Amino acid sequence: MPSVSIVNVTSYTGLELLRLLSQHPQFVVTSVTGRSAVGKRLDEVFPQLSSLLAFNQAATPAVNPKLVIGEEPAQTDLAFVCLPHAAAAEMVAHLLKRGTRVVDLSADFRLYDVAVYEEWYKHVHPAPALIEDAVYGLCERYRERIRKSSLVANPGCHSSTAILGLLPAFAAGIINPDVIIDSKTGISGAGRSPSLKTHYAEVNEDMSAYSLEGHRHLAEIVQELIAGAKDGGHPLSAPPRITFIPHLAPMTRGILATCYADLKPDAQQRMPTTAEIRALYEEYYANEPFVHVVDQPPHTKWTYGSNHCFIYPVVDVRTQRLIVISCLDNLVKGASGQAVQNANLLYGYPETMGLSIVGVNP
Amino acid sequence: MPSVSIVNVTSYTGLELLRLLSQHPQFVVTSVTGRSAVGKRLDEVFPQLSSLLAFNQAATPAVNPKLVIGEEPAQTDLAFVCLPHAAAAEMVAHLLKRGTRVVDLSADFRLYDVAVYEEWYKHVHPAPALIEDAVYGLCERYRERIRKSSLVANPGCHSSTAILGLLPAFAAGIINPDVIIDSKTGISGAGRSPSLKTHYAEVNEDMSAYSLEGHRHLAEIVQELIAGAKDGGHPLSAPPRITFIPHLAPMTRGILATCYADLKPDAQQRMPTTAEIRALYEEYYANEPFVHVVDQPPHTKWTYGSNHCFIYPVVDVRTQRLIVISCLDNLVKGASGQAVQNANLLYGYPETMGLSIVGVNP
Amino acid sequence: MPSVSIVNVTSYTGLELLRLLSQHPQFVVTSVTGRSAVGKRLDEVFPQLSSLLAFNQAATPAVNPKLVIGEEPAQTDLAFVCLPHAAAAEMVAHLLKRGTRVVDLSADFRLYDVAVYEEWYKHVHPAPALIEDAVYGLCERYRERIRKSSLVANPGCHSSTAILGLLPAFAAGIINPDVIIDSKTGISGAGRSPSLKTHYAEVNEDMSAYSLEGHRHLAEIVQELIAGAKDGGHPLSAPPRITFIPHLAPMTRGILATCYADLKPDAQQRMPTTAEIRALYEEYYANEPFVHVVDQPPHTKWTYGSNHCFIYPVVDVRTQRLIVISCLDNLVKGASGQAVQNANLLYGYPETMGLSIVGVNP
Amino acid sequence: MPSVSIVNVTSYTGLELLRLLSQHPQFVVTSVTGRSAVGKRLDEVFPQLSSLLAFNQAATPAVNPKLVIGEEPAQTDLAFVCLPHAAAAEMVAHLLKRGTRVVDLSADFRLYDVAVYEEWYKHVHPAPALIEDAVYGLCERYRERIRKSSLVANPGCHSSTAILGLLPAFAAGIINPDVIIDSKTGISGAGRSPSLKTHYAEVNEDMSAYSLEGHRHLAEIVQELIAGAKDGGHPLSAPPRITFIPHLAPMTRGILATCYADLKPDAQQRMPTTAEIRALYEEYYANEPFVHVVDQPPHTKWTYGSNHCFIYPVVDVRTQRLIVISCLDNLVKGASGQAVQNANLLYGYPETMGLSIVGVNP
Repeated sequence: MPSVSIVNVTSYTGLELLRLLSQHPQFVVTSVTGRSAVGKRLDEVFPQLSSLLAFNQAATPAVNPKLVIGEEPAQTDLAFVCLPHAAAAEMVAHLLKRGTRVVDLSADFRLYDVAVYEEWYKHVHPAPALIEDAVYGLCERYRERIRKSSLVANPGCHSSTAILGLLPAFAAGIINPDVIIDSKTGISGAGRSPSLKTHYAEVNEDMSAYSLEGHRHLAEIVQELIAGAKDGGHPLSAPPRITFIPHLAPMTRGILATCYADLKPDAQQRMPTTAEIRALYEEYYANEPFVHVVDQPPHTKWTYGSNHCFIYPVVDVRTQRLIVISCLDNLVKGASGQAVQNANLLYGYPETMGLSIVGVNP
Repeated sequence: MPSVSIVNVTSYTGLELLRLLSQHPQFVVTSVTGRSAVGKRLDEVFPQLSSLLAFNQAATPAVNPKLVIGEEPAQTDLAFVCLPHAAAAEMVAHLLKRGTRVVDLSADFRLYDVAVYEEWYKHVHPAPALIEDAVYGLCERYRERIRKSSLVANPGCHSSTAILGLLPAFAAGIINPDVIIDSKTGISGAGRSPSLKTHYAEVNEDMSAYSLEGHRHLAEIVQELIAGAKDGGHPLSAPPRITFIPHLAPMTRGILATCYADLKPDAQQRMPTTAEIRALYEEYYANEPFVHVVDQPPHTKWTYGSNHCFIYPVVDVRTQRLIVISCLDNLVKGASGQAVQNANLLYGYPETMGLSIVGVNP
Repeated sequence: MPSVSIVNVTSYTGLELLRLLSQHPQFVVTSVTGRSAVGKRLDEVFPQLSSLLAFNQAATPAVNPKLVIGEEPAQTDLAFVCLPHAAAAEMVAHLLKRGTRVVDLSADFRLYDVAVYEEWYKHVHPAPALIEDAVYGLCERYRERIRKSSLVANPGCHSSTAILGLLPAFAAGIINPDVIIDSKTGISGAGRSPSLKTHYAEVNEDMSAYSLEGHRHLAEIVQELIAGAKDGGHPLSAPPRITFIPHLAPMTRGILATCYADLKPDAQQRMPTTAEIRALYEEYYANEPFVHVVDQPPHTKWTYGSNHCFIYPVVDVRTQRLIVISCLDNLVKGASGQAVQNANLLYGYPETMGLSIVGVNP
Repeated sequence: MPSVSIVNVTSYTGLELLRLLSQHPQFVVTSVTGRSAVGKRLDEVFPQLSSLLAFNQAATPAVNPKLVIGEEPAQTDLAFVCLPHAAAAEMVAHLLKRGTRVVDLSADFRLYDVAVYEEWYKHVHPAPALIEDAVYGLCERYRERIRKSSLVANPGCHSSTAILGLLPAFAAGIINPDVIIDSKTGISGAGRSPSLKTHYAEVNEDMSAYSLEGHRHLAEIVQELIAGAKDGGHPLSAPPRITFIPHLAPMTRGILATCYADLKPDAQQRMPTTAEIRALYEEYYANEPFVHVVDQPPHTKWTYGSNHCFIYPVVDVRTQRLIVISCLDNLVKGASGQAVQNANLLYGYPETMGLSIVGVNP
């Protein structure tokens, strides 16, 4: 059974990994780190984990709530890195060097072009040589490459939602690459560090847009839609023109992206219909256990706590625009669930292992 | 002091009118109706109104919580009609005939073209002859006409938000009339009748889109943006191509519309900058007491319980798109506050009378 | 593998059973009923269940989202009855007659004294003869009897919370049986039928008390605390004097009961300390997988979606009162999770089977 | 028109004072301080206040959003002090010395006994000599003394709720002074400084109790109930035995206190009925504009943004306990609204001036 580290376990993605891995029949968490809580046990930081104790009669429990948080990760087979960007790359380099496979939840290895990375993240990349070994960890796209990799760059939460929603349309070349993505996220996406922007009385009963000047996830979205179009046999002749505006919604979990694009007529100047597009989407995701094409507008609450993504494509008949609504749980399919799915691939386990939970509803 | 009826006071717009009028120094509510509660006193249906009693020492209190809900409106100088469409038109015809001025909060008199109305609302208009006497009650646009009118068609909540956000751009002719409006509303917009769609456990911690097949407010938006472009000296050569998608957000009040459109280059092929557009917006709304152009993304919570609208125009420099974010309280500037503003105009009072409240925050 | 019916699956407890059983390795749901949705597939009523399909490659999936909702339960080994009281008893009688084991989630078989039942529920009990065969389904108390039973009366949500919080104190005889239980519940406890009391805009951002004239769960609480005191060797000399006031809190899930009682001095007139009482509680629940005595005030959010209950006993040193805070998820340990725990006992499975999930947090 | 300072205006009580005073016809805010924002204009810190500008055509607007935040309060007639305890007392001493009347929203002058203060607040009182000049600012109790005072100690939010709920019962001597107060507060009560305890994702969808070891508001409650009993002609023979447990509820505003006490039989050994107690409560608050005795359990949402308090007394007939439910908006009647009410008294204005708003509902 592979041993696992979670680096910066005191983040929300760290906590979510603990929750998911506690149901996993193969991985065993043996090392956790977190600067602000070094020396504390997991159940001191997250008291609800004490409930795991009763289920840990096995010789090697997946997650032991009595595990003490350390400063540096112990030697393990696999590590999940939940550090902020830059710090993550340094840790990843260190871990790879000692033979640990890594799922990195930061943005450090998501962009193949280091110049693009440095433009968006405003600092010199700490380990550019590793970028070419990294795979963008969207399993629905790259599962074969992930299986052979040692470093998976787990996608961003907004990016996962938008890319999964738009990939079939780009791959089939049915839209102009002129897209608007209006994304709404729950507040856990902002992380576990308190600030006025995440202060309950400020954000409860409130909607607002943010990062109007440009949100970093846009770079991933652009990169992956270009690649998706190419791999689908409809390469773009110019960079796509994408506006991506994230919004903060008064809920803990969930992202809903509403994507808008102009449909392209076919050779006979006919526009595709909703039914044709839905069929195309269903075929694209036919064998995907976690991506579901639905016939009504999906709700983020369908995904609560689960690794599922629901997608609804529909034509706006008045304007011949394609509208795609895509939603998932930002902490699961948008982060830690996707990370476990990647880890399953790294170890040749069934991709769904430990992820069979359905959304908590209502 | 003009006497006032509220028809269908048991709706949320009716309740909000009571709250706002209780602070109004001129109007006196003397008649309230509401089928489901005939014979009950206001404070039996809305117990919080009992708090008004202490403030009703005047000979003619604006709102008396002991008022009994009737079946038919008594003769009054002014009436606010909060009925659903179709029922509203019949009541409006009846009230106008007996000399009552009317602010109609339904959609029945918002559309000047009866054919468009009947296409969207799927029934024969009950009083088409009255349409030409009605004024679309967006005070920022039509205050002179409203002053001379007897019938004001109070705008829809999504419509108000989007139209106020886009008017300056259409009037100045700086964008292509090819617009996407992604609107997010609180749940009070769905009214006071219980249903699974407004059931707490279903919509709490949830985001979803609705009316993907076309929402009725689109018709108003199109009508008013065409008119705004024309009156601004930049008439459209063809109908605008607008996609409007509303979303339900887990909050009680507030609408935030994010509007996207391509900028048009000027004669010198230069694109307008954010600063230029903001100046243009500020000028357009320079003397408006309730519309505020701001220099950061606004929050619906700034508007909670108030009649104010905040607008933030900004250029997406990567794509040369204009993004406009507009927000207001759907029950106030999006309904009952706008209705009081209209009533002030009908009676020649200062437009802000009774509406000076600032948003409740946090 | 035992076949299972869920009667009235369109309720929230029915939906929660589907979610939990979908993770269960033994039970197979083969029949579901629900009057309002007869003829529909499960995934038409609950679209999020479509995500289960990918996991149903087994010959006999635990929950098949394509299952069609019927009017009457088919013959199965086990049935969960989620009907309202009275209707439940009739169904239970019918099911038992044909040899089905039953976990009844209604109140019909919780009270051993039919007169008490009829006083609280205001109707004649439809099947009084079955009462003596029923076991009150609080596993922590009655697991041996449940194992041998065919009819388990699953406890109420408020009752479970309060009884688990107070049992150790009653069993040890350390308090006067003069207790105040102030309980706060999330709104899913009110069920899935829309009403003004559960309408989002009414209950969001609101706290209120209800059932001040007496809530039916009080009868269970009294019955079980008397029994707990007796079985603990400290029988009460008179009925306990208990005030139980439930409150509605603006959240979907969770119950938190704050219980207050006067401590009794021991033979030496010494009052027990917090440390002593905590030790006593820890011993009482030492081997319980789902009940956790903690050393800080627990949060309902620790229990979200899980079958766990957290209990914090503490002495108010100024008044020598015992305060016990107890919390759980009203739909899991307070309803459907407890029901699965009972079903595990009925079939001799490990009590925790299918219930190993930890709370979704944040 | 009296000039006003708000000291530490960047707190939630400071912001709420701005909102309320903007509607006040007499006071003019001329000085605001706030360490973290010195040099900024009010509308830079609170952008929603920019909406006030349109209403500030008067020569002396009540609140000017362009006012610059200073480090020290300028000389004004009146000051509201929103500092934390200890810092408040020093500021109050300074302000009184220069002839400014003060409403202090901190706890520094609420307790008449400096020893009690120092026991609860764990530091030496910075200005004990001023205590005897201070009046506890619960207008319903002390309006005559407040009128003649220069220093008003504005009550705590939990204290106001509980004291208003229990005063009539203590004054009439109908209960044993053996009381349990279970109080539920919205999260704005924790102030505007971010922390994990007020982080949205932590407290949304969560209930918990806090300050189990003793909350400071208990000292005020005890002091005022003793005084209320004495002034009502039913002095207590011993200190009351009060347990007060506050809880955090997932809402922004509102406090609901549920109070429990044993009724005392009268001379004929007869227990008072609900009707008698309600009559007694109604008489006690007969002339109060802000306190309303109601005949059903009140909702915090009735009070949202208003200065009203709703109280529901009822006998639990099974146990002969009195239950009193009391609720208000913690930032208005529980803080800044009460402060304005006090300021009105200091200046001989009608007590309700500027406070006539009814709760925002839904």
